[in-house]
Amino acid sequence: MKKEVKYILVLGGTGFLGSNIINFYQQELQKNDIIFILAGITKKIINYPNCINVQIDYTNLVELRELIESYPIDEVFHFISTSVPATSNLNFNYDVQSNLISSLNLLELMREFNIKKIIYLSSGGTVYGESNFNDYQEDRLIAPNNSYGILKLTIEYYIKLYHKLYGINYLILRISNPFGIFHLSEVNGLINIAIRKSINFEPIEIWGDGTSFKDYIFATDFAYMFWQLIKIDCQNEIINIGSGNSYSINEIIGYIKMILPQTSWIYKKEKIFDTHFNHFNIEKLKKKITIRNTDILNAIDKTYQWELKKLIK
Amino acid sequence: MKKEVKYILVLGGTGFLGSNIINFYQQELQKNDIIFILAGITKKIINYPNCINVQIDYTNLVELRELIESYPIDEVFHFISTSVPATSNLNFNYDVQSNLISSLNLLELMREFNIKKIIYLSSGGTVYGESNFNDYQEDRLIAPNNSYGILKLTIEYYIKLYHKLYGINYLILRISNPFGIFHLSEVNGLINIAIRKSINFEPIEIWGDGTSFKDYIFATDFAYMFWQLIKIDCQNEIINIGSGNSYSINEIIGYIKMILPQTSWIYKKEKIFDTHFNHFNIEKLKKKITIRNTDILNAIDKTYQWELKKLIK
Repeated sequence: MKKEVKYILVLGGTGFLGSNIINFYQQELQKNDIIFILAGITKKIINYPNCINVQIDYTNLVELRELIESYPIDEVFHFISTSVPATSNLNFNYDVQSNLISSLNLLELMREFNIKKIIYLSSGGTVYGESNFNDYQEDRLIAPNNSYGILKLTIEYYIKLYHKLYGINYLILRISNPFGIFHLSEVNGLINIAIRKSINFEPIEIWGDGTSFKDYIFATDFAYMFWQLIKIDCQNEIINIGSGNSYSINEIIGYIKMILPQTSWIYKKEKIFDTHFNHFNIEKLKKKITIRNTDILNAIDKTYQWELKKLIK
Repeated sequence: MKKEVKYILVLGGTGFLGSNIINFYQQELQKNDIIFILAGITKKIINYPNCINVQIDYTNLVELRELIESYPIDEVFHFISTSVPATSNLNFNYDVQSNLISSLNLLELMREFNIKKIIYLSSGGTVYGESNFNDYQEDRLIAPNNSYGILKLTIEYYIKLYHKLYGINYLILRISNPFGIFHLSEVNGLINIAIRKSINFEPIEIWGDGTSFKDYIFATDFAYMFWQLIKIDCQNEIINIGSGNSYSINEIIGYIKMILPQTSWIYKKEKIFDTHFNHFNIEKLKKKITIRNTDILNAIDKTYQWELKKLIK
């Protein structure tokens, strides 16, 4: 008997980027051809049709197995990370147990339950480190600056190994630094945190002198491009997903100040886990789909509107 | 008070390559300026002066801590791996727990006890995978074909992170495929196993058609080059260490047959964890030290003499 609907398990489906992709997809949800299982530690923010929210601790193998046994899952979107770059260096063992081992458990369950596709959200902002590709043969390797990036990379390798050994298809997206609506973290994400501070008339803390530059991607643009990649059934590739534009922290603060004149900031001693330069090559992405890149000032303004609305609620 | 002797902990000091480096160093051992703690699950093969053999299970944190507390250790040579490429894909969780977590425990103990140098034996034979460096930006990454290679790489990353965060110096050696004296494994190491089979008039099992070629390094040459690198205090680098010459399995079997005319073989279905081409770039090594590369037939003959002697004992 042919299944009428497709079940997609979205690990982290109630988190920042998970919420963005579901929110972006809401028109399509009316079609009733996909059921999303939004799994994570947090409750979903908005009620969408055809979305089932399951609150689980995905690091708990018993809970994860129970979830996967409960639905005829066809694909997994794996958006969960238990750490952020800033915290990942505090306890490497915890980071390995909760991220790497949990992801291996997931892959093993996918094999057992014959789930043939995984979309994994990796981190373009951390896996590349400070490498110089024009260097010696031995140094062509990328060298992450933190446990977060190391384990993202290790999980990527295991996903590729599961593809080779067991035919599980994958799409690995190395996202740059996302910001925008549905962002909730209080420890990660410069733009959202800076806007929140400014709304509250608190100074923004800048690690270093603010000259380090990074690629920032508006989460709504990510969601658009994510679904484009799904639509063309892009498989078994690793793709950078970012805006292709880099801004220094000082530039970003400048933009925020244009919208929130009360914006103030203080410079603090740099933390070692951060990368300085993060110029992001998105040529591969451009060959696949049409890029969407909302103007930075416009995107920051939309983020501000969302942060303000959240605060008022 | 200045310490009179230097203590070097050799994890895996009683194993294949650990025994080779100690054996090669035996003249120097008379100097009484270094004490080696040879730690591992096996007992040492030969009695050397200034070498203390400690039988431990290094995956047991309690035992590892006790060992490191017991001696004023200055440097660590980390040669232990609990898996080999052929077995590493059987149980990923075990591989992570016993190799990655144990290595993280070691690094954490080094930080706690202020041990400032680690020489890590990584695997040039597995970390590179089948990558093509002329590919897309995103694909410049090396992609190991097995859990063994993935975790060697992950441990390399953490070692480099400990260097950045805590100033622990390192030397990472990516060895190609070693063979020679003191080899004991029954599951890993084509040349030794093939010679052993031939001595016993058993056919050699070849996975695939025997055309895949690899870089093989005679363990005695490795030991020589290892000590050269230590002598020049080569630090904070990743270096390929191999012969620079690749041979197909069929060629290797041909050489063995020249020494052991009874040599026979059968071709078996290829296993997926193996790499096909393993041309090894040793230009970086050549810039550091004088290469030693024993003629392959001579090295195979010496290996044969050792295997024969071992059998007769």
